[in-house]
Amino acid sequence: MRTVDVIRHKRDGGRLSADQIAHFVTGVTNGTLPDYQAAALLMAIVWRGMTGDETAQLTDAMVRSGVRVTFTDLPGIPVDKHSTGGVGDKTSLILAPLVAACGAVVPMMSGRGLGHTGGTLDKLESIPGFRTALSLDELRTAIATVGAALIGQTAEIAPADRRLYALRDVTATVESIPLISASIMSKKIAEGIGGLILDVKTGAGAFMKSEADSRRLAEALVAIGNGSGVKTEALITRMDAPLGRAVGNANEVVESIETLKGRGPEDLETLSVTLAAHMLVLAGVARDLGDATGCVRRAFSSGAGVEAFRRIIEHQGGDPAVIDDYSRLPSAPDEHRILADRSGVIAELHAEHIGLAAVNLGAGRATLDDHIDHGVGIVVVTPPGTPVKAGETVLLVRHRAGRGLDDALPLLERAVRIEDAAPPSRPLILETIGIPSTTR
Amino acid sequence: MRTVDVIRHKRDGGRLSADQIAHFVTGVTNGTLPDYQAAALLMAIVWRGMTGDETAQLTDAMVRSGVRVTFTDLPGIPVDKHSTGGVGDKTSLILAPLVAACGAVVPMMSGRGLGHTGGTLDKLESIPGFRTALSLDELRTAIATVGAALIGQTAEIAPADRRLYALRDVTATVESIPLISASIMSKKIAEGIGGLILDVKTGAGAFMKSEADSRRLAEALVAIGNGSGVKTEALITRMDAPLGRAVGNANEVVESIETLKGRGPEDLETLSVTLAAHMLVLAGVARDLGDATGCVRRAFSSGAGVEAFRRIIEHQGGDPAVIDDYSRLPSAPDEHRILADRSGVIAELHAEHIGLAAVNLGAGRATLDDHIDHGVGIVVVTPPGTPVKAGETVLLVRHRAGRGLDDALPLLERAVRIEDAAPPSRPLILETIGIPSTTR
Repeated sequence: MRTVDVIRHKRDGGRLSADQIAHFVTGVTNGTLPDYQAAALLMAIVWRGMTGDETAQLTDAMVRSGVRVTFTDLPGIPVDKHSTGGVGDKTSLILAPLVAACGAVVPMMSGRGLGHTGGTLDKLESIPGFRTALSLDELRTAIATVGAALIGQTAEIAPADRRLYALRDVTATVESIPLISASIMSKKIAEGIGGLILDVKTGAGAFMKSEADSRRLAEALVAIGNGSGVKTEALITRMDAPLGRAVGNANEVVESIETLKGRGPEDLETLSVTLAAHMLVLAGVARDLGDATGCVRRAFSSGAGVEAFRRIIEHQGGDPAVIDDYSRLPSAPDEHRILADRSGVIAELHAEHIGLAAVNLGAGRATLDDHIDHGVGIVVVTPPGTPVKAGETVLLVRHRAGRGLDDALPLLERAVRIEDAAPPSRPLILETIGIPSTTR
Repeated sequence: MRTVDVIRHKRDGGRLSADQIAHFVTGVTNGTLPDYQAAALLMAIVWRGMTGDETAQLTDAMVRSGVRVTFTDLPGIPVDKHSTGGVGDKTSLILAPLVAACGAVVPMMSGRGLGHTGGTLDKLESIPGFRTALSLDELRTAIATVGAALIGQTAEIAPADRRLYALRDVTATVESIPLISASIMSKKIAEGIGGLILDVKTGAGAFMKSEADSRRLAEALVAIGNGSGVKTEALITRMDAPLGRAVGNANEVVESIETLKGRGPEDLETLSVTLAAHMLVLAGVARDLGDATGCVRRAFSSGAGVEAFRRIIEHQGGDPAVIDDYSRLPSAPDEHRILADRSGVIAELHAEHIGLAAVNLGAGRATLDDHIDHGVGIVVVTPPGTPVKAGETVLLVRHRAGRGLDDALPLLERAVRIEDAAPPSRPLILETIGIPSTTR
């Protein structure tokens, strides 16, 4: 098979065969297919798209580029959650212990910050000693011991995705629903789960700005997962303003622990409970969402959720005392306040601007080599819908000796919009894309 | 400037700025821009196209990647011809001496065979001793001494084009009018000519199969040339059947010499006279096409044309005796005849099939490393429109011990179509795309 013919076929709008897709993915994995041919094919895919079958075959080839983990002797079906990325989205830190406390097992593989969005691994590494780079054997032990682990992608999982993702990043071929779908789902299918809840974000702080695009992505992901034997559902949720109040790393860990203790902000708690309930149903631990929600609520009130988090931290080498003593977490020494420039109601806190401002302060990376400052971040003092008087604090910026502040402040000032009246409020969870009845 | 932003801009349908285009071409030339980013941008250009301004800027940047030759102390404006490639198209071998014999100077830079089409350099190298790899200094001496030279592209001319072309060939990004236009015109503008006639082929044996595509390409080329100070005109000519009777290398040299002696096939002579007349007007040697045609006819009848070819061959190290003694040219020993399978009229001799058959016999290359057999080829015995009886010879195949014959014969059999009556004949020269009045 000549690669140039595969590229030409897609360039001219044709459907790739499973063999052609396997040739591409195998070549990328082995390094036998030159990057320039991979780049040309990726751009042709961005242009021409892929059918559902092609996307499923691409995902399957990417899964088979590495190992597909299997867990044995577990009490239930292993489940995971994936979010398409947002600002202040720390639900993974809440869900893994919460769902484990209710009796399901959660081998959660997460990523790092990307663009304006935060990453679960970066947040967890705020906790002194916490190790996210577990081997597959260590993952198995963690699952058997504490029921959940929060780790990074291991080298054995979908190696084709790592190579392709690095190439897409520098060739402007990231924005493609089939390529995004295959990248997400290959890793999730390979990690050995039987159930997956997707949190597909939509809005100003999401990668997909329109609900239509988010729905298309959600449908593609759900189809691939269920076609590959992973029961998959998706929620489409709003990501216009930051989720919760904290944006950063250590401050998001604090907010996660507070939420597990039942003292979290309402939007974050609502989304966490809903996602956890879906996970418990997918895991076969709860009969239905009502049953599952009851279990989740009890894990909050009994303290079982926060105790599960303590055990996860301890098992992964972190300092479990952070659960009770937040001063053990890093915190940058300097504060700056963004004040309301008029009286009215907070109409908008633009999540992407706030996320980018946090990156500028050091909470994320501009390049792969950048060092993360876990102690910096932004706190939302007055969330959208809150009345404010001119001069009151809207956002609290925690920075280190002014680093990045010059770039962050204009973004934060643009992020805040105050109006005379509150805009009509919309639900956080817009839609559920369920398992097709044929595969349920 | 970040290359990924340039790629994204074109991917999203934007126009590239002159700076962005220069960044791309300079990076490709220097090797500082990775091939995978170049490949992604090339595919985005195939997808989104380029405006006339962008194409002109791309051409200009490619010209500036090397030297732009200037000729001084010449009796007139140097002129050249470029053909988009056909089967049996040996007009370059006829035009260079013919136009030089009429007093113009012709620094002709040609290429090698590509796909199913032949290449001027390959044909010339049939002549024992003929050197096509002249330096720029040798080119200047040849122009001063004999008024014309037939050479390959030198390393100084548009080096960006060589790198881009190699990349396009393996990434399925050849078929793009802006990329084709910039590739052709950058080399022609850089070679130091003041006038250019383009022979844009259309039909079954051309790279552009439709007249509409050929016209779009011709218009793009003419616009770029005239915008860059090279007076440029284009003829759109039919390439359904081979031009003339001979397809190969040495046999095309023989047919070229025969044509210069006034004994060539009518279609080849007609096209050569027309192209030569345009070149003489562009060179400022003739007042108008009527004047120019008279001069060309006299160069045939006086023998001045064939004598100019003798001088060119001699000056470039070839054996000038081939002009009078064709046995000094290589000729493969074996013959095979393709016979008419019914009586009727030759309705079609499919040029692309015949060209590919010749490549299979060894007249062209399947890969860059292939060795050319200058003695093999195909002769059209009964051109389209000729009545034939069943069993008469339509094509004469000259091969070497059967090499490539198994692949060539099915192509040749498919190439011949005999009908009861001749199809309506169409003119060889379909259209002339002239110099826009604003730049004439």
